[in-house]
Amino acid sequence: MNLGVRWLDDSDSQGVRERRFDLDREGRNVPGVLWTPTDATGTRPLVLLGHGASGNKRQDYVLSTARRLARHHGFAAAAIDGPVHGDRRSPAAADSQAVFLHFAQLWSSDEEMTDEMVADYVATLDTLQLLDGIGAGEVGWWGLSMGTILGLPFVAAEPRVRVAVLGLMGVAGPTRSRIQADARNITCPVLFLVQWDDELFPRSTAFELFDAIGSKDKRLHASPGSHGALSEEAFEESEGFLARYLGPGPWTSGTLPGHRMSTRAATRTGR
Amino acid sequence: MNLGVRWLDDSDSQGVRERRFDLDREGRNVPGVLWTPTDATGTRPLVLLGHGASGNKRQDYVLSTARRLARHHGFAAAAIDGPVHGDRRSPAAADSQAVFLHFAQLWSSDEEMTDEMVADYVATLDTLQLLDGIGAGEVGWWGLSMGTILGLPFVAAEPRVRVAVLGLMGVAGPTRSRIQADARNITCPVLFLVQWDDELFPRSTAFELFDAIGSKDKRLHASPGSHGALSEEAFEESEGFLARYLGPGPWTSGTLPGHRMSTRAATRTGR
Repeated sequence: MNLGVRWLDDSDSQGVRERRFDLDREGRNVPGVLWTPTDATGTRPLVLLGHGASGNKRQDYVLSTARRLARHHGFAAAAIDGPVHGDRRSPAAADSQAVFLHFAQLWSSDEEMTDEMVADYVATLDTLQLLDGIGAGEVGWWGLSMGTILGLPFVAAEPRVRVAVLGLMGVAGPTRSRIQADARNITCPVLFLVQWDDELFPRSTAFELFDAIGSKDKRLHASPGSHGALSEEAFEESEGFLARYLGPGPWTSGTLPGHRMSTRAATRTGR
Repeated sequence: MNLGVRWLDDSDSQGVRERRFDLDREGRNVPGVLWTPTDATGTRPLVLLGHGASGNKRQDYVLSTARRLARHHGFAAAAIDGPVHGDRRSPAAADSQAVFLHFAQLWSSDEEMTDEMVADYVATLDTLQLLDGIGAGEVGWWGLSMGTILGLPFVAAEPRVRVAVLGLMGVAGPTRSRIQADARNITCPVLFLVQWDDELFPRSTAFELFDAIGSKDKRLHASPGSHGALSEEAFEESEGFLARYLGPGPWTSGTLPGHRMSTRAATRTGR
């Protein structure tokens, strides 16, 4: 059974294998990318990465986070395009402001969009966990801004997700009550990132969302800067946080000579 | 010149040397403790640790943080008793609630208390930086709650402090305007810790204080829990943060075989 997945480009770069795929979920095309350590076999953690509005499944910070997780921790990582994003729309219409506006309109008027994206993520997870090299390993979520708008309901709905990085979003907009309900249903460990001067989701709305998250094991990290000005430190912390709960390996094979323990785990065992 | 310092107990434990001292600053006794790696010579970073109200210079988390900094990073660390705390008061009156109340009353009515403590810290720094094994190395501050009430003005006033961990405190109480002015004068990198359910300094007051801190390089980390329920994670982050700006060594000598780079630095160089 291949669940209607078509494997497209397949390449390797510095120990990380990258595979483009199209998943057919009930006639809906779900375009995605999978990253694994080269020659990965057996079972290993998989982190799903949600990109931001006007971006796509392979934008710079998604790509670099995926590679970092594969190289430093031996994890698999995958991303799919958001609604009306990336390969879900015609290249001719790929003006980023138009995409942003299109998504904002959808979010305001179409509750189904969220449910469809949650189903896309569940189908992606089902499909990828059948692969040798991933299997039924632990699952993590990383997604900020639109990656939290869509990730919050997914993490709330999917018990396989064991740890999540969320943020750059607040209790705001037309789906306030759903956001709060989804947040309350989250129970896994959460790192929630806030930009102190966020102009899209003012910090008070982000604090309200963090407050609503049901997990006992949660923390909020805030830094000065606007919505889009996330620091390198936030990416380092994301990596360390995911690795703390999903790692360290070694996984069955395919990890690199340079594979390190998570910084958290190193701190713990080194003390 | 010994600046009126008397060295008292001197002991070693698992690679960390601990020295009790009394500093005479213009007739005022300043009781302190210094921790260094055993046989430290040359120059190394020194972290001043401010304890919390009703505690003392050698309470559990001060001691464990000092030992951790010495063992993992080769740093020196020192703490002095706060006003009306520890060896500054008669043992017979050492009921912790009474000490807490006494301090709260002093803070409400005695601006000089803060200036005297700042002067005590400056004198401590002057004295300890004359020692072989410390010298004119980098200086860090770690102090929460009362350790921020007194640390904020010290860090604001002392240009030798290059990095600070502050928190568990807000813009509140009778010295609001001084707190804000001191915060604005801080320019070094800051990690600011918040307990989400702080019953002594509600988080809104902590957010106001973080906002007022003048440093461009600052971050706020918040976790669920009451004022006194700081997590182990907060101590790990404190250590990693201080080490990121003060380390890594190796320092001239006296670091241990188990000496590691800071987790931050390891992440940076290992990538």
